[in-house]
Amino acid sequence: MPVLPVITAFERSPDRGRGLARDMRVRWALEEVRQPYDVRLLSFDAMKQPDHRARNPFGQIPTYEDGELTLFESGAIVLHIAERHPGLLPLEPHARARALMWMFAAVNTVEPPIFDRTIALIVEGKEAWARERLGLVEERIRKRLAELAGHLGGADWLDGEFSAADLIMVTVLRRVTGSGLLEEQPGLMDYIARAEARPAYQRAFEAQLAVFNANNQ
Amino acid sequence: MPVLPVITAFERSPDRGRGLARDMRVRWALEEVRQPYDVRLLSFDAMKQPDHRARNPFGQIPTYEDGELTLFESGAIVLHIAERHPGLLPLEPHARARALMWMFAAVNTVEPPIFDRTIALIVEGKEAWARERLGLVEERIRKRLAELAGHLGGADWLDGEFSAADLIMVTVLRRVTGSGLLEEQPGLMDYIARAEARPAYQRAFEAQLAVFNANNQ
Repeated sequence: MPVLPVITAFERSPDRGRGLARDMRVRWALEEVRQPYDVRLLSFDAMKQPDHRARNPFGQIPTYEDGELTLFESGAIVLHIAERHPGLLPLEPHARARALMWMFAAVNTVEPPIFDRTIALIVEGKEAWARERLGLVEERIRKRLAELAGHLGGADWLDGEFSAADLIMVTVLRRVTGSGLLEEQPGLMDYIARAEARPAYQRAFEAQLAVFNANNQ
Repeated sequence: MPVLPVITAFERSPDRGRGLARDMRVRWALEEVRQPYDVRLLSFDAMKQPDHRARNPFGQIPTYEDGELTLFESGAIVLHIAERHPGLLPLEPHARARALMWMFAAVNTVEPPIFDRTIALIVEGKEAWARERLGLVEERIRKRLAELAGHLGGADWLDGEFSAADLIMVTVLRRVTGSGLLEEQPGLMDYIARAEARPAYQRAFEAQLAVFNANNQ
């Protein structure tokens, strides 16, 4: 029997199985390329222990282990999977460079204000000024989403065919589901719906939801 | 005469020539591989015009143009340069995957709290709660820097030889120079100093400083 790659994920995901934790990106990529995998579930405490810090010095999930190779950082893991299997990166060199560009844009330009909303709501949610600040953060998200929607226009995906960049971008955008911000950009709602309709997405979503359901009775 | 790649940069960088704008990453990478380049300077107004939005929908610098290829997002541009020239990425596949991992870790795990400090200080600096919030943000930075310093230990670079990952990580860390936060981690101060001692870094730094000095008399 072949030894499967092993990823780590939350034993009890704070998103309650909505597929917003970053292991979803890795599960989805593995499903797209039909690579089976094993999962090691971690408690919040276990994530901060030396054992896991040896895999990821920042004590976060997901990590990825395949033989001698251990990786952390979801964007890098998805890129690694995309480089080793066909289907997630264009072969034409310029299109490939643009797909990598959109992967970085997702995590370094679109995600920061979106992640900042989680900080404003959860981490700093009890501060007296939390509500006032949330308005400022959402204004910054609104600007980014409008720029992204402007680029997408009527296209199905960010640049030609579906790629690892769309996979990362959609998981970033899904973090503001329910905020009302996405609803202001119907083009982005359609973009997310197209991605969520992919069988690989659905298999990944079900897998992470099953973990949540099994551990949170 | 060969046509050189063209990057864009601020005509008047808000950092006043301290090398903190993201064109520094691209200049440094180009200097490391000894690839000459041209620079197109942009005013804040020009960055938001359709002409530049066609290069980068988010209206930011830097961009990179080489023949038919146009890229934005500094991490992706550095990766593109590193893939086309020797010296910035290991050849051994696992070491290469880890270098890409550290590039993503720099922009997606270390940079967000550091960038948040710029927001707290500049964008939200006049809010009544700005000072109180700055303390919370700096606590989050402190945690990340300690984790990074713990990983680095006594090593010269993040993973073996100097790579594009160190280049990105050092430019991320330099954004908190002068905050006192780096000084709490002497290992990181040494790491930055090692990087700044590289001749390629120094050429890139001088080039961006010359732009600032020429346009801000």
